[in-house]
Amino acid sequence: MRGAVLYAPGDVRVEQRPDPAIIEPTDAIIRLAATCICGSDLWPYRGVEKLDGPAPMGHEYVGVVEEVGSQVTTIRPGQFVVGSFWASDNTCELCRSGYQSACVHRVLMGTLGTQAQLARVPLADGTLVATPDVPEPDLVPSLLAASDVLGTGWFGAVAAQAGPGRTVAVVGDGAVGLCAVLAAKRLGAERIIAMSRHAPRQELARQFGATDIVTERGDEGVARIKDLTGGLGAHGVIEAVGTQESMLQAIRSTRPGGHVGFVGVAHDVALPGDELFFSLVHLHGGPAPVRQYLPELIELICGREIDPGKVFDLTLPLDQAAEGYKAMDERRAIKVLLQP
Amino acid sequence: MRGAVLYAPGDVRVEQRPDPAIIEPTDAIIRLAATCICGSDLWPYRGVEKLDGPAPMGHEYVGVVEEVGSQVTTIRPGQFVVGSFWASDNTCELCRSGYQSACVHRVLMGTLGTQAQLARVPLADGTLVATPDVPEPDLVPSLLAASDVLGTGWFGAVAAQAGPGRTVAVVGDGAVGLCAVLAAKRLGAERIIAMSRHAPRQELARQFGATDIVTERGDEGVARIKDLTGGLGAHGVIEAVGTQESMLQAIRSTRPGGHVGFVGVAHDVALPGDELFFSLVHLHGGPAPVRQYLPELIELICGREIDPGKVFDLTLPLDQAAEGYKAMDERRAIKVLLQP
Repeated sequence: MRGAVLYAPGDVRVEQRPDPAIIEPTDAIIRLAATCICGSDLWPYRGVEKLDGPAPMGHEYVGVVEEVGSQVTTIRPGQFVVGSFWASDNTCELCRSGYQSACVHRVLMGTLGTQAQLARVPLADGTLVATPDVPEPDLVPSLLAASDVLGTGWFGAVAAQAGPGRTVAVVGDGAVGLCAVLAAKRLGAERIIAMSRHAPRQELARQFGATDIVTERGDEGVARIKDLTGGLGAHGVIEAVGTQESMLQAIRSTRPGGHVGFVGVAHDVALPGDELFFSLVHLHGGPAPVRQYLPELIELICGREIDPGKVFDLTLPLDQAAEGYKAMDERRAIKVLLQP
Repeated sequence: MRGAVLYAPGDVRVEQRPDPAIIEPTDAIIRLAATCICGSDLWPYRGVEKLDGPAPMGHEYVGVVEEVGSQVTTIRPGQFVVGSFWASDNTCELCRSGYQSACVHRVLMGTLGTQAQLARVPLADGTLVATPDVPEPDLVPSLLAASDVLGTGWFGAVAAQAGPGRTVAVVGDGAVGLCAVLAAKRLGAERIIAMSRHAPRQELARQFGATDIVTERGDEGVARIKDLTGGLGAHGVIEAVGTQESMLQAIRSTRPGGHVGFVGVAHDVALPGDELFFSLVHLHGGPAPVRQYLPELIELICGREIDPGKVFDLTLPLDQAAEGYKAMDERRAIKVLLQP
């Protein structure tokens, strides 16, 4: 099969790789209908995250089940399925508490590489959620978004306690931040402030439900949020970047007793304890338990109630993955869909 | 009146100070029935927190109202009252949301100094809660504990989501940590693990409801908590120290999706963002909104359902405050009550 491999910062190649095979009896093999490039793939692409030799890339996926292992009981060949970047058994105590991304048997899909034609999915019964029918092709991008960025933005919005009567701000205008706007809207937030200085992203944020756009960043951004919230700060803030600046901007934009949901993968962040203490905010985040939300998200997408697939503003054949990485790195594209 | 003043690290003196007077029409003057020394008073006493000239000390207080300002309507002279270390109006949006310690008009009682015979309490109607009757003398220590350590431990236990079916660990065996054990018990936690290596504190923790004692600290303490919780970590952990080690111990002892309630005043703490991210814990804490809990705590104390006053294991006349600081600094006493 064809699959994308990162050889060194800036050097992504699509090459012939061995077809995956069932290894564990709980595995499934899927043929990808679509895959994509994640903001978090840019960390190793930019050399911020260290790379130990060539690495298969990608952890987002939707597709049709080709084969299942002998112990797979609910997932069947021919089903169209969506999964998350953590394979999870969905039965352990942590999964049952809603934290499938901390499953005691979890496997990181990124180590297997889903920017490819085929993928092995461990713990198939726990990990994969089948759509009611094979979806219309125009629904595929939205289902693919559910695999990570929508599920992650949703978790951020839940952690920020977006809901009726509440003002929520979103730090970060990448695909996750934009999906967090959509999630906050669906969860009933009254006012949704998107922080963005890029016109196309502002436009999509508005389509997804943003009521206000703030272009300022850092301390000025915090001051604008305070201005918009009677001097108190937002009830909830979703952080979808992962830098020191964005984390502090999120914490400082939140009122005492408010909630920060942080879903940007933290890089070189050190939170000052005294500031966190006196801020009196709630802080929750991390790798999103996307699996928890998949049934609900699939229902909303298949019912055409939400359209998160709009975050894909560039579609390329898988073989042009290198151009996709470049476009995202240079912020020419919000998110790139790859056709295997 | 007599009052304690910190002149320099290690140098506390009780001296003649001017009697406080009504300044704002919302003030009350109270005659203290009892006051005490807080673990947080030890930070400047030990020179960890900087001191700008001589500072009146103390922020915990119970007593009888002597006089009220012209705009005080619910608090009356003769009432026995309990207040928190933050004076708060109890009417602003943040107070109404339960965060009186972030009241937009808050005044820090510590700047006024309640280790004294008299104290001025700003925003009296919002700050003070009267007991049903003038309490029996043996209830006074428990009511004094409600003023800070019990209210703070209670907030920690609420933030750690102590409740039925849950296992809660407490890092720190000072008065706040011990009161957190009591709070977790009252909130219905099934299993309460107190981390302590001091026999008298272990004994009090058991009296307050601890089911297990862990004497190990740091990584070994974390490993013990994991052992006791099926390898997952506690559902909730209350951090009642405020150091880097205690914060990391608390975070690492909590399972993914669990809750850390941190109430130790953070000193030189910097939380690594990546560890916090991948821990998937909820983090909430800060200066406790004690005022929120006072009516309930007073009812429990006056009904003799809880006895948090047991944290006072040394009682001294106010004039011997210096000896009280010394005893707490050397960990000879858990908490010192001062009789004005």
